[in-house]
Amino acid sequence: MTGIEANAERALADLYELRRIGAYKTGVHRPTLSPQDIESREWFASKLRAIGHDVTIDGIANVMGRAPGAGPFVLAGSHIESQNKAGWLDGALGVIYALEAARAVAEAGGPGGVDVIAFADEEGHFSGGSFLGSESFVGDVSEAMMDASQDRSGRGSLRDLLAEAGLAGRPRLALEKDRYSAFLEAHIEQGRRLEDDGLRIGVVTSIVAIWQYRITFEGDQNHAGTTRMAIRRDASKALMRLWHRIEEEFPKIVGPDSVWTVGRVTLEPGAPSIIPGHAEMLFQFRDADQAILDRMDATLRTLVAEIDAEGPCPATIEPLGQSTPAIMSPGPQSCVLEAAQALAPDHHLVMPSGAGHDAQVIAPHIPSAMMFVPSIGGISHHWSENTSDEDLKLGAQVYVDAIARMLSRAND
Amino acid sequence: MTGIEANAERALADLYELRRIGAYKTGVHRPTLSPQDIESREWFASKLRAIGHDVTIDGIANVMGRAPGAGPFVLAGSHIESQNKAGWLDGALGVIYALEAARAVAEAGGPGGVDVIAFADEEGHFSGGSFLGSESFVGDVSEAMMDASQDRSGRGSLRDLLAEAGLAGRPRLALEKDRYSAFLEAHIEQGRRLEDDGLRIGVVTSIVAIWQYRITFEGDQNHAGTTRMAIRRDASKALMRLWHRIEEEFPKIVGPDSVWTVGRVTLEPGAPSIIPGHAEMLFQFRDADQAILDRMDATLRTLVAEIDAEGPCPATIEPLGQSTPAIMSPGPQSCVLEAAQALAPDHHLVMPSGAGHDAQVIAPHIPSAMMFVPSIGGISHHWSENTSDEDLKLGAQVYVDAIARMLSRAND
Repeated sequence: MTGIEANAERALADLYELRRIGAYKTGVHRPTLSPQDIESREWFASKLRAIGHDVTIDGIANVMGRAPGAGPFVLAGSHIESQNKAGWLDGALGVIYALEAARAVAEAGGPGGVDVIAFADEEGHFSGGSFLGSESFVGDVSEAMMDASQDRSGRGSLRDLLAEAGLAGRPRLALEKDRYSAFLEAHIEQGRRLEDDGLRIGVVTSIVAIWQYRITFEGDQNHAGTTRMAIRRDASKALMRLWHRIEEEFPKIVGPDSVWTVGRVTLEPGAPSIIPGHAEMLFQFRDADQAILDRMDATLRTLVAEIDAEGPCPATIEPLGQSTPAIMSPGPQSCVLEAAQALAPDHHLVMPSGAGHDAQVIAPHIPSAMMFVPSIGGISHHWSENTSDEDLKLGAQVYVDAIARMLSRAND
Repeated sequence: MTGIEANAERALADLYELRRIGAYKTGVHRPTLSPQDIESREWFASKLRAIGHDVTIDGIANVMGRAPGAGPFVLAGSHIESQNKAGWLDGALGVIYALEAARAVAEAGGPGGVDVIAFADEEGHFSGGSFLGSESFVGDVSEAMMDASQDRSGRGSLRDLLAEAGLAGRPRLALEKDRYSAFLEAHIEQGRRLEDDGLRIGVVTSIVAIWQYRITFEGDQNHAGTTRMAIRRDASKALMRLWHRIEEEFPKIVGPDSVWTVGRVTLEPGAPSIIPGHAEMLFQFRDADQAILDRMDATLRTLVAEIDAEGPCPATIEPLGQSTPAIMSPGPQSCVLEAAQALAPDHHLVMPSGAGHDAQVIAPHIPSAMMFVPSIGGISHHWSENTSDEDLKLGAQVYVDAIARMLSRAND
C-alpha cells in the first residue's frame, strides 16, 4: 500500500450531490452546454478550487484543475455531461473519483499531485465526431470544425451555445504531454461481465475499435401481387441472404470478445404491397485485436461479393468508419491491477472495453489506463443506470490507490 | 361474331383525351375528389349523356350511366381516379372500354344495353378500406364510415372534399342486382406475364386473396459494444432467422401462382450502436386458391412458433387482413375467352389477377368477369406505365365482343 487512501464516503457524497444537478427520475439530464451541464461544471470547478487547484473552464467547456507544487503529476478525469435523460454515473463517476484522488493526494502531502479534467461532450451531442472535448484537448479540433458543429437535437450551433454559457472567445486548453506520467479514467462497465461473475473491478486492457458499414442492395421495385416470384429482383431478399450468411460465418472467425450488430435495416419504399427495390443494412463490429478486425472485415467483404456475384441484386459495401483499437499502457495498467489485487483480491477482471471513452483519445499521447465498476443489469445510457454504493466506494479506493502507485513510480 | 364491333380508333382517341386531364409527365395525377378527378368524372358523364344514357354522379363520386330501353342490361366499368403521379391507363382503360361498348351496342341497336360505371377511390386515397366507391355501390359503406374517412395525404376529410366538389348530400347509388346478367371490368395487367410470352389478352379466372401479417419479436435493447454475444437477446436476429426459414420452406408448399413478400422491416431503436430490443416484419402472401392460402398460413404460423420456442426472443404473429379469393363467374368468363379466341387466337392467357380490382367487390353480387391488356415492362402505379396503341385497340375489340356475347346470351 502507498499510504494514500480514498475517503470513500466523501466521494460517494459528492456523487450524490452532483446527481441533484439536472436530476431526471433516478438519473440526470445534462446535455453538453445545457444550463444543467454548465451548473455541474461550475460546481465541479468550485470543488477543485477548494483543494487549491488552479481551475480553468476553457473555450469548449473542458474543466481543468491543475495541482499546485512541483510534481510529478498524473492526469485524471472523464466527462461530466450526460446523454439525454440518462444515467447519473456514466462520466460523472470518473470525474468524482479524479477529484477524490486529487484531494487524497493533497491531504497526504503527495508525492506529487493530480491534475483533474472534466471533458466536454464525450457523449457526442454536437456534430463533428464524438469526444469533442478530449479531441480539442489533444489538438484535433480546428476552429473550422467548431464553426460547423451543431447540436444534434436542434438546440443550435456549438458557437451559439458556448456564447450563451459565457464561454465564447475563451482559449482552449492543450494537453501538456511532458507534465504527465499517466492518465487514468474510471467508468461504469456498461455491460454485465463483472456482475454476471460476481466481480467488482474491471482492469481495462484496451478500448475496442468500431468498424461500421453501410451495405446496399439494388433490385426492382414492383407490384407485390402481379410480379411473379421467378422474375422478381427483390432487394430485401438479397439483404436477408447476406445477413444469414454473416450469422453463419462470423462465429467461425471472430475472437472471444468480438461483437457484431445489425442495428438498422431499411427496405424501400417500405410498403406491404410493394417489392423493395432498394435495401440497406447498417452493420457494425468491434474488437480490440487488429488481426481479428482485419479478419472480420475480409470475411464481410467476401460474403458481400458472393451475394453480389450470385445476383440478381447488386450488393455494395461502404465503410462508414474504422477506428483503431486503443491499447492501454502496461505501466499505468499494472498500477490499476495491483490496486485491484490489493483491495479486491479475486474480485477483479482484466478485460477490454467494448464502449468508447475519452481515454482512447488521450492514450496515443500519454500512457493511459482505465478501470471499471459494475453496472447493475449492464444498463447504461438510460435513467435507470446504477451501481451499488458498496461498489462505488470500493471503486474510489482502488482508483486512489492506483493513482498513488502511478505517482510513486513517477517519483522513482 | 355478334355483329357488334368496337370502333377501336374512337376508344383510343377517348383514352388520349382523358389522359390530358391531370397530365403528369406521360402519366396523370388525379387523386380521388381532386379538381382533376372531378373534371374527369364530368368529362366522362358528358360522354355518356351524348349516347343517351341517364347519368348520375352520386354522393361518393361514382359516375353511373344507365342505358335506355328495356334491356337486357350488363354492367361495365372500372375506376377513373389515379394513384398520385401515376399511370394514364390503370382504371381509365376500363371505363373507356365500357363507354365504347355502350356506344357500340347503342349504335348496333342492341340487343339490350350497357350500363357504365366509373367507381370512386378504388386506389384507396381515403381511409376506411380500398374500393370505397364499389363498396358503397354494394351497400358496404355506412354513413359513419363516410364521416370517419380521411384523405391519407392530408387533404382533409372525405366529407369536406365531397362538399368542395359539390357532391355533399347527394344520395349514393345502389347496385340493382336484378337488372344485370353480368359485370365486366378491363384493366392493364400490371405484371409481365403477357408481355414475357408475347401474348395480348388475359382472361381472368380469379382475383387473388391477400393475407397480411405483422410478426413481432421482443428482445433486450442493449449497448452494442458492451453486451457480449452470448447474453444478447437481439430481436433482429430472431426476425432474420424467421425470414430465412420462410424463404426455405415456402417454395416447397406454395402453388405455381403464389407470391409472398416482406415489404417492411423495422428494428427499434434503429441505431448502429444499439442492439434492437424490438423487431417487426410486414409479411404478405397472395393466391386465388383457398387450400394454398390455408397451407401458407399454417406453414407461416408453424415457423413463427418454432422461432418463438427456440428463443431467446418471443415471436408473435398478428393477422392484419385475410380476404377471400374472388372467383370470376364461368358464364361471363367464357364470353371473354371466346372473344379472345376469335380476335386474338393463340395470343391470350387464362390467368389469375395478382392485384385487387373493383370486380372482386361486385363478383359476390352479380356474375363478373375481367380481362387484361399487357403492361409494358409490367410497370404500374408509376407515371411511366404504358401499353402499345395496338394492344389498346385490340383490347377494345375483345372487350366489346365479350359484352355483345354476354348480352346475346342474356337474351337467349
